[in-house]
Amino acid sequence: MVIEVIRIGQRLVRDDRVTTHVALVARAFGATKIFMTEVNPEIKDTIEKINRTWGGNFTVEFIDSWKSIVKKKKDEFKIVHLTMYGENINDIASQLGKEENLLIVVGAEKVPREIYELADYNIGIGSQPHSEISALAILLDRIQKGEQFLRSFAGAKRKIIPTKKGKNVLVNETRD
Amino acid sequence: MVIEVIRIGQRLVRDDRVTTHVALVARAFGATKIFMTEVNPEIKDTIEKINRTWGGNFTVEFIDSWKSIVKKKKDEFKIVHLTMYGENINDIASQLGKEENLLIVVGAEKVPREIYELADYNIGIGSQPHSEISALAILLDRIQKGEQFLRSFAGAKRKIIPTKKGKNVLVNETRD
Repeated sequence: MVIEVIRIGQRLVRDDRVTTHVALVARAFGATKIFMTEVNPEIKDTIEKINRTWGGNFTVEFIDSWKSIVKKKKDEFKIVHLTMYGENINDIASQLGKEENLLIVVGAEKVPREIYELADYNIGIGSQPHSEISALAILLDRIQKGEQFLRSFAGAKRKIIPTKKGKNVLVNETRD
Repeated sequence: MVIEVIRIGQRLVRDDRVTTHVALVARAFGATKIFMTEVNPEIKDTIEKINRTWGGNFTVEFIDSWKSIVKKKKDEFKIVHLTMYGENINDIASQLGKEENLLIVVGAEKVPREIYELADYNIGIGSQPHSEISALAILLDRIQKGEQFLRSFAGAKRKIIPTKKGKNVLVNETRD
C-alpha cells in the first residue's frame, strides 16, 4: 500500500507549526509524501533535516492547486478525507486497510465543500473536535495496525533503541 | 479506568497552539482532566467553550509545579511518560490497558531528566520524531481500543451524526 498525504486550507504563519507536525506524523507513520500549498519553505527544510538525522526518504512537495492533485490521483488512489463529520473510523478501518493506495486529505479549520464530494471516504476520528495531527495519526495507525512502528528508516544517522528508562541511541558515524 | 494528563515543559506563546491541541485530544479521547503550568489562560477558555458546545466535563487545572502533582498522584495512578526513547507502544499497550488509573505525562521539546525516573512507564509511540499531539492520541486509542469514540458527551448543544458525505449535526436548542 502506498500512502500519500495532502494538506489543504492551512493559513500562512498561523498554521505553520501544526502543518509541520502533520508532516512529521505522515513521515513517522509510514506515508511516503506530503503535498502542501501556500506554505512556509522552512517546513521543507525541517523535514529534510529530520530525514538526514533519522533516515528515510519522505518528501515534501509544494503545489499550486490541491484540486488538480486530488483529481489526478483519483485514478490510482482512493481519496480519504479526514473530517469530524465523517463515518466513524471504528466502522471503516478494516475496509480502508484493504485498499491499494490512499491519498489522505488533511484539512485545517475551514475546508472547501467540494472535497466532501471528491473524496471516496469521509472519515471521522470520533465526532468531537481535536486536531488534524491526531486525526492523521489514528487513521494511519488503524490502517497499518501498528506495523509502521516496526519499519526501519534507511540511512539514519541516529537510531533509537527503545528502553525502559533514559535514552539509548545508536549513532552511525560513518554516514558523513 | 480514570485517565488524566499533565503537560510539562511547554514554552509560553510558542507552544500555546500545540498545548491547546494536546488538551483537545485529551478531552476527545476520554481523559477527564489536564494539568498544565505556565500557560496562557486563553487555553482554559477555549476548552470550556468546546465543552459548552460539544458536551462533557473535561477540566483544565493550572498548577505551579508538575513535580508535586506527579508525586502526589503516584499513590493512586500509574505514571506514563510519553517519550520517543521509551518502550514501543506495540509491546506494552495491552499491559497498560489493565492498569486502574493513569496519569499521562506529555512533554514538549525539552523535559527534565527526573521524569524518566518518576515514571512507572516510559513509552515511545514509535521511535521517530513526530508530535506530542499524535503521541497522546495513539496512546489513548490503544489503551481504550477505540471505545472512547463510542461514548457520548453529556449536555452537548451540538452532536454530530457520522455520515458518508457532508455534515449532519443534531442541534439541541433547549439547553440554553
